Amino acid sequence: MAQTRILPPADNAHQYPLLIKQLLMSGPRYSPDQEIVYANRSKYTYTDLVERIHRLANALTDAGVKPGDTIAVMDWDTPRYLECFFAIPMIGAVLHTVNVRLSPDQIVYTMNHAEDDVVMVHDDFLPILEGVKDEIKTVKHYIQLSDEPSAKSTSLNSLGEYEALLAKAGAQFDFPDFDENSIATTFYTTGTTGNPKGVFFSHRQLVLHTLAMTGSLSAYDEIPLLRSSSVYMPVTPMFHVHAWGVPYAATMMGIKQVYPGRYEPELLVDLLKEHKVTFSHCVPTVMQMMMATESIKTADLSNWHVLIGGSALTRGLCDAGARLGISMYTGYGMSETCPLLSVTHLKPEDLELPLEQQTSKRIKTGIAVPMVNLEIVDPEGNPVPHDGEAKGEVVARAPWLTQSYFKEPEKGEELWQGGWLHTGDVASMEPDNTLVIKDRIKDVIKTGGEWLSSLDLENLISQHPAVAGAAVVGVPDEKWGERPHALVTLKPGEEASLEDIQSHLKKFVDSGEINKWAIPGQIDFVEDIPKTSVGKINKKLIRDQLK
Amino acid sequence: MAQTRILPPADNAHQYPLLIKQLLMSGPRYSPDQEIVYANRSKYTYTDLVERIHRLANALTDAGVKPGDTIAVMDWDTPRYLECFFAIPMIGAVLHTVNVRLSPDQIVYTMNHAEDDVVMVHDDFLPILEGVKDEIKTVKHYIQLSDEPSAKSTSLNSLGEYEALLAKAGAQFDFPDFDENSIATTFYTTGTTGNPKGVFFSHRQLVLHTLAMTGSLSAYDEIPLLRSSSVYMPVTPMFHVHAWGVPYAATMMGIKQVYPGRYEPELLVDLLKEHKVTFSHCVPTVMQMMMATESIKTADLSNWHVLIGGSALTRGLCDAGARLGISMYTGYGMSETCPLLSVTHLKPEDLELPLEQQTSKRIKTGIAVPMVNLEIVDPEGNPVPHDGEAKGEVVARAPWLTQSYFKEPEKGEELWQGGWLHTGDVASMEPDNTLVIKDRIKDVIKTGGEWLSSLDLENLISQHPAVAGAAVVGVPDEKWGERPHALVTLKPGEEASLEDIQSHLKKFVDSGEINKWAIPGQIDFVEDIPKTSVGKINKKLIRDQLK
Repeated sequence: MAQTRILPPADNAHQYPLLIKQLLMSGPRYSPDQEIVYANRSKYTYTDLVERIHRLANALTDAGVKPGDTIAVMDWDTPRYLECFFAIPMIGAVLHTVNVRLSPDQIVYTMNHAEDDVVMVHDDFLPILEGVKDEIKTVKHYIQLSDEPSAKSTSLNSLGEYEALLAKAGAQFDFPDFDENSIATTFYTTGTTGNPKGVFFSHRQLVLHTLAMTGSLSAYDEIPLLRSSSVYMPVTPMFHVHAWGVPYAATMMGIKQVYPGRYEPELLVDLLKEHKVTFSHCVPTVMQMMMATESIKTADLSNWHVLIGGSALTRGLCDAGARLGISMYTGYGMSETCPLLSVTHLKPEDLELPLEQQTSKRIKTGIAVPMVNLEIVDPEGNPVPHDGEAKGEVVARAPWLTQSYFKEPEKGEELWQGGWLHTGDVASMEPDNTLVIKDRIKDVIKTGGEWLSSLDLENLISQHPAVAGAAVVGVPDEKWGERPHALVTLKPGEEASLEDIQSHLKKFVDSGEINKWAIPGQIDFVEDIPKTSVGKINKKLIRDQLK
Repeated sequence: MAQTRILPPADNAHQYPLLIKQLLMSGPRYSPDQEIVYANRSKYTYTDLVERIHRLANALTDAGVKPGDTIAVMDWDTPRYLECFFAIPMIGAVLHTVNVRLSPDQIVYTMNHAEDDVVMVHDDFLPILEGVKDEIKTVKHYIQLSDEPSAKSTSLNSLGEYEALLAKAGAQFDFPDFDENSIATTFYTTGTTGNPKGVFFSHRQLVLHTLAMTGSLSAYDEIPLLRSSSVYMPVTPMFHVHAWGVPYAATMMGIKQVYPGRYEPELLVDLLKEHKVTFSHCVPTVMQMMMATESIKTADLSNWHVLIGGSALTRGLCDAGARLGISMYTGYGMSETCPLLSVTHLKPEDLELPLEQQTSKRIKTGIAVPMVNLEIVDPEGNPVPHDGEAKGEVVARAPWLTQSYFKEPEKGEELWQGGWLHTGDVASMEPDNTLVIKDRIKDVIKTGGEWLSSLDLENLISQHPAVAGAAVVGVPDEKWGERPHALVTLKPGEEASLEDIQSHLKKFVDSGEINKWAIPGQIDFVEDIPKTSVGKINKKLIRDQLK
């Protein structure tokens, strides 16, 4: 370690650990009367938000919650949840954002694994917890979250309803200082195999993520996503990587926030219209559902900027959005990365093109945001060239990456190798530092010494007029290492043969887009392609079936 | 200390200390071809900047510079200086930005006190150092900074000229990680008495200051000072609190930067015009000089945003600027605070007013920026009401305040009391959290149990048609504690008596603006008001003379 010069502070100087409570100062200071809206139900001001956070801290403390305890939340996207984002970490406790889409068994697993002390649960999820309550080991109390005037009766050990508890609690709480490396939040990420794994983020990490977000989503005139005059509505759930961390940034800036509750497409579109929402983040599936509504046809969406993540933003979706006036951008990150790593980066000259012609820029994974170091590396960990061709695994350094998996240090060691977080994604890097994600590393097909992107190949096969869908996996091959094997579904009434698809792909070999060994020797024409519970192609199952 | 939950990282996880080298990643990544301009002399790209920083690091290391060493710089505002802002801290050394306006004796004092190892010095300042070189104790080498093709000959122990050293040095340097609390920069602040005092800032502090700057100067549509499409030209010197930290933020964002060299008003205006500068920061005196040039009359300044600090932005200057199309904003901070504490905060509705009518908002000290906690307190340290009336000393908490004075811990203890940095400024706080600075605490007049602002009183006296200038100090008074005593200069050919001024002030008593004990019983009509070397009224000298 270099012998740098470190000077002691004055004895009574303030060390200023980075704490989430500091993110709550500037928004109410700038915009005390700014609104926070709960769907078409209610609204309140930033001044109210602050008071409610103080009341929630008192209510939890009155209920015996201590620093270091873990409080689970099962709610839709609500201002209540925003209050939990602040109050729970601010008293020194850990916020566990429960993925309400998990199976009841998995929810129990995560609650027991996280050692939750208190669970705050919306009426809609009471039946789930009542059904498994004997298996929940560490939870002492439940707090009910209700959109109705009175709380439902429940067999859970309930302290009462949230609003009633807040009304009873004191309006002033003295939030303490503590170590900035204290854990603020935890949640579980699911793969196709094994139990959910717990990631965790400290106060310091969330503060830095928030500050860097304004350096990336606010400061660029080409991507003016998050500005003081923005109106923000999340459309990825708050249990999903803190709604990508945007509620913290929006609150720090004092901008108007609209929380939609449940994700009902017609409701979402109505809220867009009513509140003139300018910024959302969204996964492609939900965007497709919103775009399929009748009411979207009469909406002016020319000022709606949407950050797309979770899965790839396709050219088709981006173009269809552009025709409705929607500006879409790709964000890249994952549960382990808090999540922000990179965002679409347009140049001023890109904006002079019609929206449709900007698509090829917008569907790329963008450029790493400030403070983030992204690299693509070969299996030995050596960087591969940034020529837009060579592929490598995406590895990251940033001040806000989960430092391990909770109580599974051996999996943490796998995630972190050589001081870099390994994302498991394969990408190329263009000479202008734009990242282009190609595949999951476990789905990439290693053939003839090259990495072949299963996603690229699926896209090319899908361009055949008879094809409805395609899935490609690698199967072992003595000569080539692996060879691609495709599953194809055809459009109703259409027909195609192995040779038809092969000669379709041969055109891309001739144009130099793929190598000739990328053409699958085997194609199964099937009725359905196996999918996971969240609608992704289940390539592990396909590989298993092909064995 | 609260028992929060702190989890260990995976053994090979990256701890990611906050280091200045991280501020150099995103700008070149976003805008490798963006320009950095040196007046009307030369320009280069961000890609060049990175290479030159690597070369400078090698040149310094080749010259024997080690982590923990201190490198002083005496230069005008140049891209060279920007390179020093990065390369010197990035190798683990301390950058000492020398105030070239100090007397030679004071410069020697600061160099000896900081224990400088190497001094980088512009040709223009060689004579100063040659004249005092035997008194400079710790400096081993000098590096010459020249705008001419060949270096001047000198009696100093010179390693040669900067450009020649860079040309010889390697183009790749492996910048190490080290403790984020390592000191990155130091410089000296001067008062009216005593020796200059050294403040110091760590890597962590400068990174956080930079990130928060985008959260305040970029994210607000009402104060769009620093955006990716901005063109930035500093007009407060780089030795003065790192040009308020803006070069770090501008570089992080990859925006065009124009360094003017010397502050010659005509040159500054020419650069404004040629490069369509959109953002500068400036002290009132230099702004007045620029506004007095002939060439400014033909400049389109409607997109020039200027942050004014150092001394108060007066209504007159702000109005005169507005008539030229210039948008001025007040920034508040000091050497001890890195410096950013608060900035003018306009509301959307303020922007609907004509520029002239926005003045009363723009001349206030604004609202604390994100992560900053500002309070006004009475002499016992208790907060006073935020009613726009009550006055108190401004105290601050923020993650980027000097933690003490270098080698003068007892002065650091005075600066820090009760965990708050005491600014020595007296202000009121309006109900909307806007800070309004009233006076320096040592200049405020404590009369009849109230704090009377000497600045306010000077402004009122100056409104008398015969008055050219005024200075007011408190003098001891048995009954009132202190009473105001005024020094007044009259305009050429004008006359006024004690009674004239008193009856002029009586109008403000009648309108409730001041109390009747604010009317000075004694006024000295003088030829000149004593000023300090930097042009501020020397109230200490006036008080001494009145004793």
